[in-house]
Amino acid sequence: MVVMQANASAEDVNRVVNRIRDSGLQAYPHRSAERMVVGIGGNIQEVGADQLMQLPGVTSIVPIQKPYKLTSRDFHPERSCVQIGDVHFDDKLVIIAGPCAIEGRNQALETAHAVHEAGAHILRGGAYKPRTSPYSFQGLGERGLEMLAEAGEATGMPTVTEILDTKHVDLVTRYTDMLQIGARNMQNYALLHAVGESRHPVLLKRGSSATIHELLMAAEYILSHGNNRVVLCERGIRTFETATRNTTDINAIPVLKAHTHLPIILDPSHSTGHWEYVQAIACAGAAAGADGLMIEVHNNPCEALSDGFQSLKPERFAALIQQVNRIYSVVNCTAVNTPQPDPNVAAAHMNPACAL
Amino acid sequence: MVVMQANASAEDVNRVVNRIRDSGLQAYPHRSAERMVVGIGGNIQEVGADQLMQLPGVTSIVPIQKPYKLTSRDFHPERSCVQIGDVHFDDKLVIIAGPCAIEGRNQALETAHAVHEAGAHILRGGAYKPRTSPYSFQGLGERGLEMLAEAGEATGMPTVTEILDTKHVDLVTRYTDMLQIGARNMQNYALLHAVGESRHPVLLKRGSSATIHELLMAAEYILSHGNNRVVLCERGIRTFETATRNTTDINAIPVLKAHTHLPIILDPSHSTGHWEYVQAIACAGAAAGADGLMIEVHNNPCEALSDGFQSLKPERFAALIQQVNRIYSVVNCTAVNTPQPDPNVAAAHMNPACAL
Amino acid sequence: MVVMQANASAEDVNRVVNRIRDSGLQAYPHRSAERMVVGIGGNIQEVGADQLMQLPGVTSIVPIQKPYKLTSRDFHPERSCVQIGDVHFDDKLVIIAGPCAIEGRNQALETAHAVHEAGAHILRGGAYKPRTSPYSFQGLGERGLEMLAEAGEATGMPTVTEILDTKHVDLVTRYTDMLQIGARNMQNYALLHAVGESRHPVLLKRGSSATIHELLMAAEYILSHGNNRVVLCERGIRTFETATRNTTDINAIPVLKAHTHLPIILDPSHSTGHWEYVQAIACAGAAAGADGLMIEVHNNPCEALSDGFQSLKPERFAALIQQVNRIYSVVNCTAVNTPQPDPNVAAAHMNPACAL
Amino acid sequence: MVVMQANASAEDVNRVVNRIRDSGLQAYPHRSAERMVVGIGGNIQEVGADQLMQLPGVTSIVPIQKPYKLTSRDFHPERSCVQIGDVHFDDKLVIIAGPCAIEGRNQALETAHAVHEAGAHILRGGAYKPRTSPYSFQGLGERGLEMLAEAGEATGMPTVTEILDTKHVDLVTRYTDMLQIGARNMQNYALLHAVGESRHPVLLKRGSSATIHELLMAAEYILSHGNNRVVLCERGIRTFETATRNTTDINAIPVLKAHTHLPIILDPSHSTGHWEYVQAIACAGAAAGADGLMIEVHNNPCEALSDGFQSLKPERFAALIQQVNRIYSVVNCTAVNTPQPDPNVAAAHMNPACAL
Repeated sequence: MVVMQANASAEDVNRVVNRIRDSGLQAYPHRSAERMVVGIGGNIQEVGADQLMQLPGVTSIVPIQKPYKLTSRDFHPERSCVQIGDVHFDDKLVIIAGPCAIEGRNQALETAHAVHEAGAHILRGGAYKPRTSPYSFQGLGERGLEMLAEAGEATGMPTVTEILDTKHVDLVTRYTDMLQIGARNMQNYALLHAVGESRHPVLLKRGSSATIHELLMAAEYILSHGNNRVVLCERGIRTFETATRNTTDINAIPVLKAHTHLPIILDPSHSTGHWEYVQAIACAGAAAGADGLMIEVHNNPCEALSDGFQSLKPERFAALIQQVNRIYSVVNCTAVNTPQPDPNVAAAHMNPACAL
Repeated sequence: MVVMQANASAEDVNRVVNRIRDSGLQAYPHRSAERMVVGIGGNIQEVGADQLMQLPGVTSIVPIQKPYKLTSRDFHPERSCVQIGDVHFDDKLVIIAGPCAIEGRNQALETAHAVHEAGAHILRGGAYKPRTSPYSFQGLGERGLEMLAEAGEATGMPTVTEILDTKHVDLVTRYTDMLQIGARNMQNYALLHAVGESRHPVLLKRGSSATIHELLMAAEYILSHGNNRVVLCERGIRTFETATRNTTDINAIPVLKAHTHLPIILDPSHSTGHWEYVQAIACAGAAAGADGLMIEVHNNPCEALSDGFQSLKPERFAALIQQVNRIYSVVNCTAVNTPQPDPNVAAAHMNPACAL
Repeated sequence: MVVMQANASAEDVNRVVNRIRDSGLQAYPHRSAERMVVGIGGNIQEVGADQLMQLPGVTSIVPIQKPYKLTSRDFHPERSCVQIGDVHFDDKLVIIAGPCAIEGRNQALETAHAVHEAGAHILRGGAYKPRTSPYSFQGLGERGLEMLAEAGEATGMPTVTEILDTKHVDLVTRYTDMLQIGARNMQNYALLHAVGESRHPVLLKRGSSATIHELLMAAEYILSHGNNRVVLCERGIRTFETATRNTTDINAIPVLKAHTHLPIILDPSHSTGHWEYVQAIACAGAAAGADGLMIEVHNNPCEALSDGFQSLKPERFAALIQQVNRIYSVVNCTAVNTPQPDPNVAAAHMNPACAL
Repeated sequence: MVVMQANASAEDVNRVVNRIRDSGLQAYPHRSAERMVVGIGGNIQEVGADQLMQLPGVTSIVPIQKPYKLTSRDFHPERSCVQIGDVHFDDKLVIIAGPCAIEGRNQALETAHAVHEAGAHILRGGAYKPRTSPYSFQGLGERGLEMLAEAGEATGMPTVTEILDTKHVDLVTRYTDMLQIGARNMQNYALLHAVGESRHPVLLKRGSSATIHELLMAAEYILSHGNNRVVLCERGIRTFETATRNTTDINAIPVLKAHTHLPIILDPSHSTGHWEYVQAIACAGAAAGADGLMIEVHNNPCEALSDGFQSLKPERFAALIQQVNRIYSVVNCTAVNTPQPDPNVAAAHMNPACAL
């Protein structure tokens, strides 16, 4: 990582970038209020640290020991504000909601209106479903994308849907505002590469058995291919416990906030697998510092073609939103009383907008 | 489980109890506002369901399919209010705090005063330490118990300490107000039996690889030996994730509240293993519905003989208490807005004291 | 599953198949020595069990409760003999060996000759590498495929290599004899679909956190798209244990043999992650009933670009082969002494070829 | 660790031992063919490395970095030959067999005779049973010990039984030849301490969620209290896989052989939980280098009061023994062909008695 003066000129920066690229390496410039940084993808010895140090504006060469670089807060200390449509991941608890799968036009529209009225910001809905069995409902495909897009427009909400195949990147990008990489594909590197090149916003779900480190490395794949509009999602991990579908790794939220600048959301629907527990765990996520929540809502859970057990009815969802917003306010507007704020803890708990 | 009329006379109840005991089985009478219940320990066929039905006051025989009976909300629907000294586990977020181990008189007294002033209710401190290595500090033994008792008296807080051996039950009971069964001994049935017979309050920590079901079965051992003053503690489970010492199973809190009447607390110090994450996870616990928290505090964490990495300084602990109390208020006083309350969810989230 | 007379005519079978397909369902005919079976993919109520029963040659309709059908031994009781080039997975312990990644022409040829002389049957080598870090060596791509094909021809061994993207199916099929689905892609359904349609032999590795059931469901995806030339591979699962890279799930071998007709091999290189333990675990695999082994061998492990720690030198590999072949002989030629053979156990341990 | 000349006199050794003990530390002398070693329990700085170096016969002071010392092969390079009655853990595959629980005199005697005739060496049988439920059969207690002892005498086999409480050490030692610490008590330090002081042989089972490192630390507790007659037992670990009761960690066998001199056995009955898989996994254990096996056998599994699902009938057990002995012969008499033996691998696979 090449650190330059905060007021380094564009000319100086370009000189550094070009020198790196001429050596066959990647260069990732990033300017913040306090300094200008150029990340290097590859072995710095091929370009030469000494040569870089002699270029105008360069103040130091700092090795990033962590294997993830662009994802790291060392490289990008302030939190990233990813924008999806006109929704910003930095000034409120962002709620993504909708059905597990788009099952038909009426279901999509009804659920979209219901979650919008309850206070959701982004509409979710699956058109390509990764199902354990080849004989289960696999989603409506492009027809589902059309219905999702229509429901998004009707309610004014941007949309997100899962993508399973590199061949579908263009198609899904046309219909939706955000591409979801599901848990099963978190280490599908061909797909990470493809969405990285697409520059379309990405919702990256943690694999059910992926470590936090592996999640950050998967995000690094996307960022290193040029796309830094990435939101991370904890959705529960696989453990020996069988009382719930997954074990919500609530620790992951403060750990991720300490290590990466990317927004982090929690999916309590998948992380518990039972609608009865969704509200309690949604509250826990907001309390632990999550930037958003993704919740499955269905206008008729008992007849859902998938995940009915973990879907909330719209009226329960409305109650949940009130509760989590209250908790978000407590967490983000009272931390100013903490004595001797540690940078990590402060970053995890304090929203600058709340500094009364 | 024999269900009797709510106004069944003591005579009627005794008749049922004696009939059960005469058949060589255990009988566990329990009266609540709505009904009188007598649990049966053993095979009901040995006493005869038909014979029991004919006794005065008996209205029905209900099989409890779950292998835990006394621990179950089927048997005891309202939440148990366990009392330790003058601290009640039902009307506030109970805070248990103190050092991992009692290391000396000054350390015990200083930390006790600090946590008391910050708002803790119960003092913890280890005199017998279960350490992975036989060469590590094993605790001060009876001298440690004396120091803990002195610190408790000096601050007016009841005390809790871990017990490792059936031989120590009497000794530890004399010095402290609550016996802790640690994670490594959750399935030490000889010890569960012994503390069950002691009738002293018990803090039962979940084994780091125990299922929620196994935790309830371990509690059942204690209750079935006559002691129903049991508080359960989630302290993190062992998973593949290595970024934290354990994985906080936050799901366990609403799951346990749905299945048992016993109070449930969270230990974010052990469940994260890093002091930086303790506040975020303590907040998550309060938000998920915990009845209390157990937190390691040390007046000088850097010199702690054990668990220094996960101990908070007193001033951080004070800030944490303010935050978790605000969240507890949000969770316990606003759920009344939930439409169509489901009994399970309501029980998990609504405190009757808040029904404005 | 429609069961027909063993001597049902082709005409009778076609009538059943067509009736099923006309109802919009899939039909999978399979003839064995003892009976003729037609599996149904979809809900039998749409075609009508009664109508099917009336067709000539049909003797019964048997529901297969297991969610995997074509993969199941209920549907295909005898063991499948998958053939790769002229190597058969049924009459010996099939050894797949070679480097983790093809790093260059000399390395490929040298290692191929070494493993061939030591007794390997199939050559492995990666051209597209799924690496946790985007900055690690990603494989040589098509150049690597060329080198692998050349090394296979030079030694007369068929070849297998990993495939990461649906776009590469045609290309990789042209160069190699078997397509490997790696652990990270075991639930990449787009890829499973694509290799299913290719009809090229597939080596399906178990995901490091996939249950045995999920592995069988992933195989079902491939079979249900028309390709039944599938070999399953246990390569270790992710657990809390960190002394080894993964935990070899040796239980999986007899469990899989009891449930599926597909060949099962073990990869002790990945399942241990340390070359020192590869021989012991290879022996364990042969003893537990594996049909083959996949072993990483490198002519110079210390300079390997990936997985050097778990690669064997050729001379150690040669010693290993002698040992595992002796164990295979013991296991497959002595089980005839077992009294009262249970069908499951017998199937797991007895090779009909050994029935002296 | 103080290394002395191989021919150091008893006087020289005693001088070193006393110097260490006078400093308040533990001293553990151990003489092997190649050298004399005195292990130190505690901080060497309290006795002074320089002072020790000046004593006659001392050649060097070697720090043992591993937290386990007495258990380590660094301290005791040759394999320990633990003797139980007249059974030695070094010259054959030692078979421990018998019922899960002693249920009555006839059952004990019948099963003992059956396993003895089939070739078992040590008789197992539980008198104190650790059961998940307080309402399950808890064992016959002292009456069970009497029956076990009688069955052992009638067949000439030494016996082993589980111990649950420190209060029972004397009683159980009187009746049996070996004390078993069960998986649930592997970190019950009070019990480890008590059996360490008893000097009676100990069978230490790995906790179902204990790492290999923790197993070695638990053994270190026993050895550090003066008892080095310890046999380790892998009995399966808890993972996400539910097709079997536990996951046999077959890797643990070569890993343990590389790190400790203590004998290692496998319990395939508990590690699989299904009798159908016991033989395949017993074979795998012998192939991986185990020194023995522990197998549950019941004369009437269908009526067993516990663990009937995983118990073998005597005739199956007899067939199993023939098979595992053949595999043990292959593994222990052919490894001499391995080129360039590595000390670790050699130790794991080569039995000196086989060096033809």
